[in-house]
Amino acid sequence: MLEEKNFSPATIERLPVYYRALQKLEDKKITEVSSIELSKMLGFKPEKIRKDLTEFGNFGIKGLGFKVSELKNKISNILGLQNNFRLAIIGVGKLGTALANYEKISDLGFVVAALFDTDKEHIGEEINGVRVYDFDKFISISHRKLIDIGVITVPDSEAQKVADVLAEAEVHGIWNFTSVKLKVPYFVTVVNEDLTVGLGTLSFYLNQNWN
Amino acid sequence: MLEEKNFSPATIERLPVYYRALQKLEDKKITEVSSIELSKMLGFKPEKIRKDLTEFGNFGIKGLGFKVSELKNKISNILGLQNNFRLAIIGVGKLGTALANYEKISDLGFVVAALFDTDKEHIGEEINGVRVYDFDKFISISHRKLIDIGVITVPDSEAQKVADVLAEAEVHGIWNFTSVKLKVPYFVTVVNEDLTVGLGTLSFYLNQNWN
Repeated sequence: MLEEKNFSPATIERLPVYYRALQKLEDKKITEVSSIELSKMLGFKPEKIRKDLTEFGNFGIKGLGFKVSELKNKISNILGLQNNFRLAIIGVGKLGTALANYEKISDLGFVVAALFDTDKEHIGEEINGVRVYDFDKFISISHRKLIDIGVITVPDSEAQKVADVLAEAEVHGIWNFTSVKLKVPYFVTVVNEDLTVGLGTLSFYLNQNWN
Repeated sequence: MLEEKNFSPATIERLPVYYRALQKLEDKKITEVSSIELSKMLGFKPEKIRKDLTEFGNFGIKGLGFKVSELKNKISNILGLQNNFRLAIIGVGKLGTALANYEKISDLGFVVAALFDTDKEHIGEEINGVRVYDFDKFISISHRKLIDIGVITVPDSEAQKVADVLAEAEVHGIWNFTSVKLKVPYFVTVVNEDLTVGLGTLSFYLNQNWN
């Protein structure tokens, strides 16, 4: 059960990072970790880590740090990883194919359940063991495959059309790799993944040093 | 010349998004735009847009909005896009190949100047017109190709070794697609691109609705 709690967007964005660090520690059979150690692993300030992690509940042991497994499970619950949300990737170009092979997606419990394209050359192919279907049949196949999240990796010019079909199929989540601001009904949540933001930020900092 | 001005990290992240929107308007020969119109294009609140854009200088025309070309050029200067920073992508697996083909990188003025891998099967290949070199020769080739930014798309286990070579070659910027917190000397700026953050955030919001 998720308690009513408002995390800041910045805290939410750090959750998958904490989760993965805790998973690494658990894999190494480490049971407790201090905020200083997490800080060294992640590059966040220890105070920020303490502030974030104490928000999730009482997982600290005074003077020792945090209980790795309990904290990891708590974060998993907050992020909803236990739902094992099922993904469909729409557009199996280079980026869609890269995502279909991206093992960090399955490491977090997500399942890439189907791929879609409109190009007859790709339809019927298997990528990383997952079949490419004809996007024209998206609605029936997405129901059969119980798709929760649509990943849009088509050209910008096709993005809104794809989003419309996803909404019609009642897919509740869209992970949007295009630059298009998608119009969706109230029940659809969109997260935009704009790769140029990171590159632009890097350019900004280099430019500061340059001048 | 860049004036001394401290933008918040969140404002910096919105700059490439503004830049692209203004470029689209310019392509359509639109010379002025209001914050309301930009809000519809981008999904940011008009007040936030006004606050961001007035920080960059006096590009508003009272009651009319912003001058598209001047504002675009100003943002380009702040982001340093006029430097046409030169990228090397290290690791031409699926993700590296997707980035080598990602046209939004060149749309912002960046140049993918060289690709690197250690796999003999890839060395000598051309991807999107750019050659794949042996990573063992990174230092000399990166000097010859005037590389400013290294894009790390290798497995996590190789990431730190790659970063060490980049630093030795005096590459000043790293765009890191691995989950590794890289250790780099003072003159290297790292921007981490963790794709699972977006997916984790989407999962968080879906899970809220689910419960």
